[in-house]
Amino acid sequence: MKVTVLVRPKPGILDPQGEAVRGSLEHLGFAVSEARVGRLVDLEVDAASADEARSAAERMCEQLLANPLMESFTVEVVGA
Amino acid sequence: MKVTVLVRPKPGILDPQGEAVRGSLEHLGFAVSEARVGRLVDLEVDAASADEARSAAERMCEQLLANPLMESFTVEVVGA
Repeated sequence: MKVTVLVRPKPGILDPQGEAVRGSLEHLGFAVSEARVGRLVDLEVDAASADEARSAAERMCEQLLANPLMESFTVEVVGA
Repeated sequence: MKVTVLVRPKPGILDPQGEAVRGSLEHLGFAVSEARVGRLVDLEVDAASADEARSAAERMCEQLLANPLMESFTVEVVGA
């Protein structure tokens, strides 16, 4: 089952990579007042149902894919 | 206007980071047959309409946010 995990820096957490992207975009002439950079992970999970796949992906985030102190995550089961 | 850009490695392009994530998840006991790692960028774009924001974000991807040889991108205008 295909699952997409989105990991974002929490509000208030400094994001130097996002700040660098914002500066570069501004330099290129784009009107961008904020940029925040996160990660996405596309997974193929062996699960019997969408609920099971979602639950497994949430545990993966807690254990490996996200840093709960600094990052929030969302899980989307593709086609569910 | 809030825009989310998702950048993924194209099919067929090697993704060593994804392969490492897959191995680690397997080691933790998760049944994951594939993992691919990409980036997400949340932007606050100064634009008069959703179409204008989308068009600007697509040009940002072409010029800075994605490597068109190795990566594909999708643009989502939040709330549009």
